[in-house]
Amino acid sequence: MTPAFSAERLIRFSDCDPAGIVFYPQYFVMFNGLVEDWINAMGIGYHVLVAERRVGLPTVRLEAEFRAVSRLGDRVRLQLAVARLGQRSLALDLACIGAEPADVRMVLKQVIVTTSLDTHRAIAVPPDLRTAIERSAS
Amino acid sequence: MTPAFSAERLIRFSDCDPAGIVFYPQYFVMFNGLVEDWINAMGIGYHVLVAERRVGLPTVRLEAEFRAVSRLGDRVRLQLAVARLGQRSLALDLACIGAEPADVRMVLKQVIVTTSLDTHRAIAVPPDLRTAIERSAS
Amino acid sequence: MTPAFSAERLIRFSDCDPAGIVFYPQYFVMFNGLVEDWINAMGIGYHVLVAERRVGLPTVRLEAEFRAVSRLGDRVRLQLAVARLGQRSLALDLACIGAEPADVRMVLKQVIVTTSLDTHRAIAVPPDLRTAIERSAS
Amino acid sequence: MTPAFSAERLIRFSDCDPAGIVFYPQYFVMFNGLVEDWINAMGIGYHVLVAERRVGLPTVRLEAEFRAVSRLGDRVRLQLAVARLGQRSLALDLACIGAEPADVRMVLKQVIVTTSLDTHRAIAVPPDLRTAIERSAS
Repeated sequence: MTPAFSAERLIRFSDCDPAGIVFYPQYFVMFNGLVEDWINAMGIGYHVLVAERRVGLPTVRLEAEFRAVSRLGDRVRLQLAVARLGQRSLALDLACIGAEPADVRMVLKQVIVTTSLDTHRAIAVPPDLRTAIERSAS
Repeated sequence: MTPAFSAERLIRFSDCDPAGIVFYPQYFVMFNGLVEDWINAMGIGYHVLVAERRVGLPTVRLEAEFRAVSRLGDRVRLQLAVARLGQRSLALDLACIGAEPADVRMVLKQVIVTTSLDTHRAIAVPPDLRTAIERSAS
Repeated sequence: MTPAFSAERLIRFSDCDPAGIVFYPQYFVMFNGLVEDWINAMGIGYHVLVAERRVGLPTVRLEAEFRAVSRLGDRVRLQLAVARLGQRSLALDLACIGAEPADVRMVLKQVIVTTSLDTHRAIAVPPDLRTAIERSAS
Repeated sequence: MTPAFSAERLIRFSDCDPAGIVFYPQYFVMFNGLVEDWINAMGIGYHVLVAERRVGLPTVRLEAEFRAVSRLGDRVRLQLAVARLGQRSLALDLACIGAEPADVRMVLKQVIVTTSLDTHRAIAVPPDLRTAIERSAS
């Protein structure tokens, strides 16, 4: 699948555990940042969406495979592809890749729903976000 | 499945995001702590295992479902059952439950391997850990 | 100074950095949790204060000294004393202590203000919190 | 003081707390990253220093003032100046600034020592790091 968006990320001291490798929950923090950057890059301000429009993007389901370790100082590539855009949800295929394309560190399938941050209930994907995602994914 | 181990956990300010609910990567931090407590409770010092014996317990695969939000101040129960104990791996079924048993917030299936922290390669589950887990799970 | 409140805390894998010791920002997360527990112990629900009454407790100033390292598996004591209770602020003396009272790992002087979470402006310390603190500190 | 180094940083969802503003320990994580970037920019690989040469850079003392809140989506500037370079220590003046130079969010004075990660004892600042810092600060 062709990535809709990708970004380079340095593995930092604060990402790593006493084993000297990325502490695995930190991958999810990194991918949360990637989704943020993607939404910003599509011209939908992430902070406007969340803080002003009160639209939440919680994860409802995920599957992850950790295939190789990432170490302090590694420059990894985080990438994102849209697997499916539903009425109220979005399925993403994410990956963390090392210097070589075949050096896959971690892959993640993640389903996000759009919610109202006032009720925490699912709402339709906002039209401007839907249009931007359709454009980004094509 | 009967949990082999469980612990109560207060949802703290530092666990929560601007939506006022648990930031989902934080669930994995909480479950990491639960596995730590479980290993300590079985009489295998977690810090001895990791820091002295240099045995790593990285996650290689996980599947999670987030069914209901957890909020600041909630007292949740984290529970752990052993789904399978392999030669070099351990499959766990984990859950985060609210005040009522039916109030399931999040469920997680997680496969952990035992590794050498010097090589990051898989090693056999150490015999004392294996024996303790078999006892704990029965 | 006699501590007004203290709690034991296990140093966890997720608290530690690639040097195998507590990553120093994590001490502030721990002390944030201690203040939470203290406020809960005084009968003022911390989550009620923050989430319902919309009272913030941001830090405006702090001074910290890191005297000895804390390692994975250490059981430390976190303690808190009230140095001064002002109209809109609270100065705390905090410390992280090892197994022996003389084994001081880290000391922190922290000034917290009470704010409205709607305006982020300072407000008077709520009367019930003031009364509880005066009682706790005496 | 003229900054020796500075970097822009987006305030992310994962940096913020239920009050919708930066959770203050997260500032220290950001500044840790800034020091990392600075050391990399001086041509001393931070990960080489820490992971291969086993030189630690723990903080022994800090003083911070939090003057204004930073919110989700803010683009802040983190800056660093060398206040003093000692035999075994380094005093830094750090600041987090908003869009306007006068919009100071947070200032930090931090003393770092160079240590052996094998003994956690102070060692002389490595000569190449000393030379690079002297050049950077002038």
